[in-house]
Order: sequence, then structure tokens, then C-alpha cells
Amino acid sequence: MQIKPFEDRVLVEPEEVEETKSKGGIILPDTAKEKPRRGKVVEVGTDEELAEKIKVGDTVVYAKFTGDEIELEDKKYLIISKSDILAVIK
Amino acid sequence: MQIKPFEDRVLVEPEEVEETKSKGGIILPDTAKEKPRRGKVVEVGTDEELAEKIKVGDTVVYAKFTGDEIELEDKKYLIISKSDILAVIK
Amino acid sequence: MQIKPFEDRVLVEPEEVEETKSKGGIILPDTAKEKPRRGKVVEVGTDEELAEKIKVGDTVVYAKFTGDEIELEDKKYLIISKSDILAVIK
Amino acid sequence: MQIKPFEDRVLVEPEEVEETKSKGGIILPDTAKEKPRRGKVVEVGTDEELAEKIKVGDTVVYAKFTGDEIELEDKKYLIISKSDILAVIK
Amino acid sequence: MQIKPFEDRVLVEPEEVEETKSKGGIILPDTAKEKPRRGKVVEVGTDEELAEKIKVGDTVVYAKFTGDEIELEDKKYLIISKSDILAVIK
Amino acid sequence: MQIKPFEDRVLVEPEEVEETKSKGGIILPDTAKEKPRRGKVVEVGTDEELAEKIKVGDTVVYAKFTGDEIELEDKKYLIISKSDILAVIK
Amino acid sequence: MQIKPFEDRVLVEPEEVEETKSKGGIILPDTAKEKPRRGKVVEVGTDEELAEKIKVGDTVVYAKFTGDEIELEDKKYLIISKSDILAVIK
Repeated sequence: MQIKPFEDRVLVEPEEVEETKSKGGIILPDTAKEKPRRGKVVEVGTDEELAEKIKVGDTVVYAKFTGDEIELEDKKYLIISKSDILAVIK
Repeated sequence: MQIKPFEDRVLVEPEEVEETKSKGGIILPDTAKEKPRRGKVVEVGTDEELAEKIKVGDTVVYAKFTGDEIELEDKKYLIISKSDILAVIK
Repeated sequence: MQIKPFEDRVLVEPEEVEETKSKGGIILPDTAKEKPRRGKVVEVGTDEELAEKIKVGDTVVYAKFTGDEIELEDKKYLIISKSDILAVIK
Repeated sequence: MQIKPFEDRVLVEPEEVEETKSKGGIILPDTAKEKPRRGKVVEVGTDEELAEKIKVGDTVVYAKFTGDEIELEDKKYLIISKSDILAVIK
Repeated sequence: MQIKPFEDRVLVEPEEVEETKSKGGIILPDTAKEKPRRGKVVEVGTDEELAEKIKVGDTVVYAKFTGDEIELEDKKYLIISKSDILAVIK
Repeated sequence: MQIKPFEDRVLVEPEEVEETKSKGGIILPDTAKEKPRRGKVVEVGTDEELAEKIKVGDTVVYAKFTGDEIELEDKKYLIISKSDILAVIK
Repeated sequence: MQIKPFEDRVLVEPEEVEETKSKGGIILPDTAKEKPRRGKVVEVGTDEELAEKIKVGDTVVYAKFTGDEIELEDKKYLIISKSDILAVIK
């Protein structure tokens, strides 16, 4: 299966966050943890300008609460618009 | 009958979702299930740029809660704007 | 009398909807029925681009709750903007 | 006195509406009656494109609740923007 | 002192409104009276297109609740944007 | 130290307002006084079009509640966008 | 590690603010202190126009409550859009 983000979007695998324990050792459920804000680019959209700036393998920093979640072969990914990319870490 | 999405829209047949049962075996009614977010393109609008990028038979991923439902010969379809297409699966 | 939709609008005669009865046979008043979403184009605006794409006699699908109602010789019509047309049925 | 609508606006004399009586014969006050939505064009703005499309004497159909009321020599008129004109009746 | 409205704005001296008395003779305070909507143009901004269309001495009709009040030598004026001018009376 | 407003902004020193006393002599605190709306331009941004229209030393009239306050060497200034400048007093 | 702000953004190290004590000597927690509004540019995005105007080492003044916080090697930075930069101090 081959997924291609549409136009100026990228497919991102969000960075793993370490398990968070509150004081007292209780494991916080997912919704209480702050969502990761960095991820690895897995696929780049067809927009040529974007393709010059962002490459597969780059780590991108993206704004909190942005992107659409998508599940592919039991892994969670995010589809992020170019306008929500804040920085690139190489 | 021939339906043609207008300009930069596509006609999509949403993917079947398996029947969802909550723990305890109760079948959840339609409104409680998460709406499918993938569908097969059945017809592409007249916009030339769109027609180059999306073909009949492609599977598109689209944003939740987008598209207008339309019923044709007792089947439900969605008319989705180009701007709501997130990715294409070939 | 000759009515001409302004610029990129069309004049549409909404499709008749069959009388809807709730279970138990009570006829639902107009406001409780879902509004029709297809109609026949009766007149096309002066916009040249539009006039190439939509012809008198076409059936158009339009977004729910769009269009302005207008009464001409005791019949109800809708004036619909090009941006609210979703598909054309020929 | 000579009033000229500014740029792409028209000055419209709203069509008279017949006195409305509720069942029981009580005359409804002005605010309870639905506002007229057709009017005769009395003056056209300076915008050249508009002046080609709308002529003094045309009847225009305009969206409900649009336009700015203005009183000239004890008669009420509306100044309506081109974008609020829905159709022209000739 | 020389005040020049910036770009596409005009400086307007709002028309005097006659003292309004409610039935019973009580003089209504300023805030209860409807604000004047016509005024005399005292100065025109530097925008060339505007300067061709509006001249010092013209009476302009402007939308209710628009414009910024400014006091110059104890007289109240309004600075009104071109987009809020509805008509010109010559 | 040299501060330069960015692009189409100006640095303004707001005009002093005389101490305001309510009837009865109570000095009104700052927040109850109407904010000054004129100021002297101290520095002009790098935008060339702006630099032609507004000069250091000009007095500008600006919309209420606009601009960002900034403190430089214990004096308060405002950074105001070109779009919030209403008039220039020379 | 090399972080590059995307397009027309800059990476800013916010200026240190002195510890704030309320009268009575209680140290105010972070959230009660007004956020710093100046910072030193650490990295400039790829946008060429921006790169001409803002250099690494410049101090920028930015609008309150703007920018996205990011932590790099235990130091807090802000990613700020060009449109939120108010002035440059050299």
C-alpha cells in the first residue's frame, strides 16, 4: 500500500513520548499527557515547492493540536499541512 | 443517470465500516460509531488540475465531518471538495 | 416577465418531494420535512464561465440550507450561487 | 438634489407590499410583516461594470435583510451593494 | 493646523440633527437619538482614486455606526473609510 | 540603542493627556481615562511606501485600542500598524 | 542538532526577566508574571525576504501571547512568525 499526502501536506510519524507518571506513580492516561509536537516525515505531498523544502526522514516541529490522525497498519500517523510546520530539524 | 461533481469536487463511495460492538455485545447505533474517513473515488469533477491528480478508482482519505451526503439508487455517497482531501492511496 | 439570475447564480425549480408520513400516519408539516436538495435549472446567470458549465434543463445538486427562496407566479424557486452547486446530473 | 450611489451600489425603491392582516382582521405592524425583497432601481453607482448590467428602471431581487435604508423627501429607499443583488427582472 | 485623512479616508462634518423630543416633551439625551448619517466632506485622503470621486464640499451618506470620532477645535468630526461611504449627494 | 519598527509600522509617542478629575475632584485612575488617540511619530518602519507618507515628527491620529505598548528608557511608546493610522496632522 | 525555522519564522531566545516579588516578598509563580516581549534571534527561516531584514543576533520585539514555545537542550525558545514581529533593536 502506498499513501501519498495530497498537495502541500506531509505524513508524519509522531515522536514517542516516554510514559508519564504523576507523583505517586499513577500512570496518566493518554489524554492527560501533552501531545508530542515533533515527528519524522514519512511521506511528502505532491506540491513541488514543499518537496524541495521537506524531505523524507526530516524531523519537523508542528503546532500543537494540528494535523489529522490516520491509522495505517496499526500505527498512528499525522497528516500535517505545510502551514502548520514551524521548523525542520536535520 | 450520469452525475458529475461540480468543478473541484469528487464523488466518493465511503468505505464500509465493520459493525461495532461495545464491550458487552450491544450493537452501537450509527451515530455513535466513528464515521469512515476513506472512500473510493467514483467520479471526478470538471476541474482540470484536479482531474490530473485524482482518478476514478483511487482511494482518498478525507477530513472527518466533511463532505455532503447524497443518495443515488439507494446507496450513500459523499461529495467532497478538493480542499478536504488529505491523502490518496493507490 | 423575464427573470435573469445575477452574474454567477442560477434559478432552480426544486424537485418535488413526496408527502412524508411519520409512522402512525400523521402528515408531517413542511418545516419537519428535509428540504429537497436537487432541482431543475430554469435560468442561468450572465456569468460566461457559468453559462458554459450549467445549462437550462440540467438537474443540479446543491448544499442543504443554501439559496434564496423566491416566488414567481405562485411557484417557489431558489436562486443558488455557483459556489453552492455540488454536482450536475445530466 | 442629486444622489449618486457610491461605486458598485444601486439606489432602490422597494416594492409596495399590500397591507397584511392576520386572521381576525388585526393589522400587523410594520415590523411583523416580511420585508419586501424586490424594488425598482432609481439610480446606479459609478462602477462601469455595474452600469452595464443594471439600468435605471430595472426591477432587482435582493437578499433579505440587506441594504441600508435612507429617507429622501419623505420616501424610503434602500442602498444595495452589487453583491446583494440576486436577480434582475426586465 | 492641517489635518489630512490617511489614504482612502475622508474627514466629515456630520449634519446637525434637530433636537428630538419624545411625546410629552422630554428632550432625549444624545445617546437615545439616532446618529446622523449624512455629513459634509471637509478633507479628502491622499488616495488618488478616492480624490477623483469625492470632493471637499460633497455631502456623503455613510453607514450607521461607522467612522471614528475626532474632536478638532471643539467641533466633532468623523473619519470615514471609503468602504463605508454609501452615496454622494451633490 | 536604535529601535526600528518592522515593515509598515510606526513608533509613536502618545500625546500627554491632562489629569482628569471627575466632578467632586476625585482623580480618576488611568484605566478610567480615555486613552490618548494622537501621538508624535518617533520612528518609521522600513516599508518604502509608508516612509513616503509618514515622516518622523508628524502627528498621527490612530484608532482607539490599537497599537502595542512598549517601554523604552522608562517612557511609554506605541507601535502602530499603517492600517490603524486614520489621519496625519502636519 | 540543527534547527531551522520554517519559511518566514524566526527562532528567538526570550529575554530573561528578573524575578518578580509582590509587595511582601512572595515570589510570584511564572504564570502570574507578564511574559517577556523581547528576545534575541537565534536562527532565521529560509524565506529570503525575511533573511534580508532580520539577522541572527538582532533583538526583536514581538506581540504578547504570540509564538510557539519549544524546548531545545533544556532551554526554552519561541518560534515567531514574521507577521508577529513588531520592531527590531540593533
